[in-house]
Amino acid sequence: MSDGGGDVPRGDDIGGPSPPSYSSSSSSSSTPLCVGCVGGGQLGRMMALESPRLNVSMKFLDGLVGADCPAAQVVGAESCVRDGGSLYDEAKMRDLWDMGCDVITVEIEHVGVDGLMNMERDGINVQPSGRVIGIIQDKFAQKASAMTREYFSKHDIPLPPYVDISDVDSIRNAASSLGLPLMLKSRRGAYDGRGNTVLRDISDDAVIAALSDLGLTIIGRGEVVGTIVSAAGDGESSSSSSSSSSSGGLLYAEGWVNFHSEVGVMVVRSTTGEVRSYPATTAIQTDSICRVVLVPARNVPESVRRKCEDVARNAVSCLGDGATGVFGVELFLVNNENGLDVLLNEVAPRPHNTGHYTQDACAVSQFENHLRAVCGLPLGSTDLIVGAAAMVNVLGSPSGGIDRTMRGINAAMSMPRAVVHWYGKGYRPGRKMGHINITADSHAELDGPLSALLLAEGISEDVVHRGIGAGARPPPLVGVIMGSHSDLPTMQDAVDVLRDFGVPYEVDVVSAHRTPEKLMTYSRSAVDRGLQVIIAGAGGAAHLPGMVAAMTPLPVIGVPIKTSTLNGQDSLLSIVQMPRGVPVATVAIGNATNAGLLAIRCLCASRPGLRDRMVAYQLDMKNAVDGISRRLLEQGSDKFLEGMGNTSKSVNV
Amino acid sequence: MSDGGGDVPRGDDIGGPSPPSYSSSSSSSSTPLCVGCVGGGQLGRMMALESPRLNVSMKFLDGLVGADCPAAQVVGAESCVRDGGSLYDEAKMRDLWDMGCDVITVEIEHVGVDGLMNMERDGINVQPSGRVIGIIQDKFAQKASAMTREYFSKHDIPLPPYVDISDVDSIRNAASSLGLPLMLKSRRGAYDGRGNTVLRDISDDAVIAALSDLGLTIIGRGEVVGTIVSAAGDGESSSSSSSSSSSGGLLYAEGWVNFHSEVGVMVVRSTTGEVRSYPATTAIQTDSICRVVLVPARNVPESVRRKCEDVARNAVSCLGDGATGVFGVELFLVNNENGLDVLLNEVAPRPHNTGHYTQDACAVSQFENHLRAVCGLPLGSTDLIVGAAAMVNVLGSPSGGIDRTMRGINAAMSMPRAVVHWYGKGYRPGRKMGHINITADSHAELDGPLSALLLAEGISEDVVHRGIGAGARPPPLVGVIMGSHSDLPTMQDAVDVLRDFGVPYEVDVVSAHRTPEKLMTYSRSAVDRGLQVIIAGAGGAAHLPGMVAAMTPLPVIGVPIKTSTLNGQDSLLSIVQMPRGVPVATVAIGNATNAGLLAIRCLCASRPGLRDRMVAYQLDMKNAVDGISRRLLEQGSDKFLEGMGNTSKSVNV
Repeated sequence: MSDGGGDVPRGDDIGGPSPPSYSSSSSSSSTPLCVGCVGGGQLGRMMALESPRLNVSMKFLDGLVGADCPAAQVVGAESCVRDGGSLYDEAKMRDLWDMGCDVITVEIEHVGVDGLMNMERDGINVQPSGRVIGIIQDKFAQKASAMTREYFSKHDIPLPPYVDISDVDSIRNAASSLGLPLMLKSRRGAYDGRGNTVLRDISDDAVIAALSDLGLTIIGRGEVVGTIVSAAGDGESSSSSSSSSSSGGLLYAEGWVNFHSEVGVMVVRSTTGEVRSYPATTAIQTDSICRVVLVPARNVPESVRRKCEDVARNAVSCLGDGATGVFGVELFLVNNENGLDVLLNEVAPRPHNTGHYTQDACAVSQFENHLRAVCGLPLGSTDLIVGAAAMVNVLGSPSGGIDRTMRGINAAMSMPRAVVHWYGKGYRPGRKMGHINITADSHAELDGPLSALLLAEGISEDVVHRGIGAGARPPPLVGVIMGSHSDLPTMQDAVDVLRDFGVPYEVDVVSAHRTPEKLMTYSRSAVDRGLQVIIAGAGGAAHLPGMVAAMTPLPVIGVPIKTSTLNGQDSLLSIVQMPRGVPVATVAIGNATNAGLLAIRCLCASRPGLRDRMVAYQLDMKNAVDGISRRLLEQGSDKFLEGMGNTSKSVNV
Repeated sequence: MSDGGGDVPRGDDIGGPSPPSYSSSSSSSSTPLCVGCVGGGQLGRMMALESPRLNVSMKFLDGLVGADCPAAQVVGAESCVRDGGSLYDEAKMRDLWDMGCDVITVEIEHVGVDGLMNMERDGINVQPSGRVIGIIQDKFAQKASAMTREYFSKHDIPLPPYVDISDVDSIRNAASSLGLPLMLKSRRGAYDGRGNTVLRDISDDAVIAALSDLGLTIIGRGEVVGTIVSAAGDGESSSSSSSSSSSGGLLYAEGWVNFHSEVGVMVVRSTTGEVRSYPATTAIQTDSICRVVLVPARNVPESVRRKCEDVARNAVSCLGDGATGVFGVELFLVNNENGLDVLLNEVAPRPHNTGHYTQDACAVSQFENHLRAVCGLPLGSTDLIVGAAAMVNVLGSPSGGIDRTMRGINAAMSMPRAVVHWYGKGYRPGRKMGHINITADSHAELDGPLSALLLAEGISEDVVHRGIGAGARPPPLVGVIMGSHSDLPTMQDAVDVLRDFGVPYEVDVVSAHRTPEKLMTYSRSAVDRGLQVIIAGAGGAAHLPGMVAAMTPLPVIGVPIKTSTLNGQDSLLSIVQMPRGVPVATVAIGNATNAGLLAIRCLCASRPGLRDRMVAYQLDMKNAVDGISRRLLEQGSDKFLEGMGNTSKSVNV
């Protein structure tokens, strides 16, 4: 499902020397492979935590001296370039290679590309290559490069509209061609919202203010100069990449995208051009910083999720030779008349915040797959091994200090399926200090713990609701529908069972004959909305259950409603006698209790806790009958019969 | 489900100083807690790999100098006691504490207990306490201590019979009271089968040979002396614990246990006495070394699995104050006339080989839970987050060198849900070099990849089959049963569907009226055998589906078989009109195809890949009808009807 398609462009072969292989026939194949990583922030740290069990050792170059960077805390100072150094310093990167590395990789794109390319010319194995990092470093080039333009236009994948900016006039022209509001974006060094600003009108004051936001001023005949506010100091790594310029090439403008939601897809590409994608996620930002990630992408039809994954794989493939390792692909979903369009936003050549969930929700995480790819090992699975997952970033509390910052972490320590990932960085307001992953069998079952965590983290639920498209409610597991509201007195028994067992449900009227469009919409969207079982009640010419079953792969349980003319025999036969190929699980006439219980039994397969409760329910029934039996024996049948006026209902189960 | 019961003995409070807490109200709560670990083998290494994300740092003392031990490779030489040292050397353990530790723990029980107790008297925080490690160090004392004896006898939990051995006469007495064969076991330092031997007859030669196996000889009037072959050099850590003695107290004898299978249960106990257990596993040994672990325990009824977990929790609880951290509990299952008895074998005060699967099959691994417990943090969940898991140890190939040793690892790198854990140790034949975890939605779905891995690892499948009790077949997911073999022509359609979708199944005849005992056994054991759905076909007074549904919590799908007298209407009504509380999912008369499809739909909930195939099946049906429709339009109805002689069956679906 997530393997690369056959029609994406692939490099014929990689440049540089072959990476070492696990399956060596020499007797030294248990010697660790050594990966040198430019950047020692939390992404490097999390690679380092996965490397030893793969027989991979890691060395780091970071701007912070020695043991202070997150990666050094894991591998020890002696595995870092002595005294640290700039990620733009070729000599320091060569020092890293000289620590015995088999391959050099990066955990941040803000590095010295020229230096990396020089090293590659000297036969040093760099993955991803300097050329690929260079394309991605310049966000304008990333979109405008001949290769990507041609590829995307050929495959009809739209990008948000954008133009180059050289001076104030070109800003005004962009505003008139792309409309307002207009995004002004730094071509290089942008990170977590820094380097982006919004222009809402084109008055002199507004233009000056927007440029000032970015650290730029206007000189002479409208030329834009200055030092772009950039990833310096924090971001995923600890090295500065401020760049100063007095000419064009600093900025580009992007048309405003009024998006439904943002999607992140992690992609991994091997040295041989094999490409796999992880599932599409919903990425929710606050103040342009990733805050919450939900997977599978919430409130997005499966067909659109797959399109996102296709676009992401293709975007990485078209980077060509040297595009090795994990790439984070950010996409916009935009409402159109037929549903949702997919727009490519940008690509990062490394593990990414929207992929942290893979640590606890997949057999092989983005960090392991990055190491596998750059070492030339087989790529690992990118499938989820759980039904749903969420990631919540822990940011330095704006005003509450470290104690307030730890509140989410402390809450997570007591939540059964939450996993804490701390980065070991010093406290600073707004800084990414760690993250928490939660997993569950379904989105419906994720929402309880997620809400508790959002509360502890101080994130409004509205942020999440807006992030998945306005008004989207948490999805239930079981849908209870009926052909008419007059069926509700019967169907309520199913609702009662679901409530007793604590299973999230929804109840609605869907008439096959009076609301055929709704029938189709309901059935076709059931999987996308997270439903796992549907209970449908109908009477007479009872077409609802069978028609729903024809339009969903989910199990559909049919409840024949008792009718006045034929006592429900018409309903029963209409529901049960389905043609070969389309099953309906039919229960007794009017017995919605059993429909609820059957739904529970279907959900039990992957939920041992729920099965325990079903076993307890069965024991309760046994005990109830045993009690009656004892009373009958004690009283004898004559006396028991006398008392049956008020108990007959419970006896005649 | 796995929480400690209320009636286990609990320490009133822990000795020693309070461990530091995460939820500190001081501004320093982001300072890492520091855990010092005595022993730096693979167990310490795997703790170290989980510690950074919990904001815990680790220091190690190991017998190997500096960077050569598995843990030092992860944390760096500067986080190990300089020049290493014996795990029995109190001064070295104090050096470890002086590296800034908040708590001292162990990854092996063969350590200097007196030294640890001295340190505790000086206020040093040791978890688990020296006293508890001391009880466990002496396997005889572990079983014979007043506390455990009293506890187990009070709770009626049997131990294998055992007696103290002081000289040759006591060996002969043991053989006559406990019978032959007799296990002779070293009281201390035993590891991975070393320190155990089997005495099959009591001739002088046999006794001398058995004692020689253990490194012992007979002197004077039958006294046994020598140096017990022990955990020196390898085992879970790298420190020697050979002990020499010239008196009794070296050995004990244990009656031969002819066991059904061995079970391992990991237990974690907090400083406050809270006890949780992980699920019971089947532990399969070859040459007394753990080789394969299966979870949940295979071929063991759920009630017995729960009893194992109860026994394990109780065994740890009764160790009392200072029994903090993770404990590996080994149990024997022994056949008796009513099923399986549970016998306690032994307890290890640390993470354990039978708990490695928790790294990839649980939200919180044994290593994380050990750190949580010894640091006084809240205990984490011990539930599985997958349906089933297996662990396979990678041992140094006896003769094939490192290349042969890497074969299993290399195979695992290309298996979707296999995770490789390499220990970074030098190759030695028979040495534990690493392990591989595999996860799946069920045991049935685990067996394919497990077989491939066993083949690559060179482990015979017979070893696994013997390990789970002779003759146990891999469990299927769906059971197809029918009241009579004459129903098979109908029911085969369900089998065909299951086969087409690649779902493991079994087929059997179970008659409610002619084989009522089999009906009960089949239904009651269905969950334990791993079934997730049952399809039952019956005709006439068709009681089979409903009776099965009454005795299992699984979803039961009923197929009414067409009868000659009432055309199957009798079957339909007998199956569908179930009383409230016991649902049967009924399909159309004679339509076993739909029963198979319904079973698939039930299994889809936790299997996205299977749901994709169901969607494809539905699309195929649509395309088939579209094809017919086109032909009908082209040919017109008259001509089409002429040709229907040979296609009517496929049209009339």
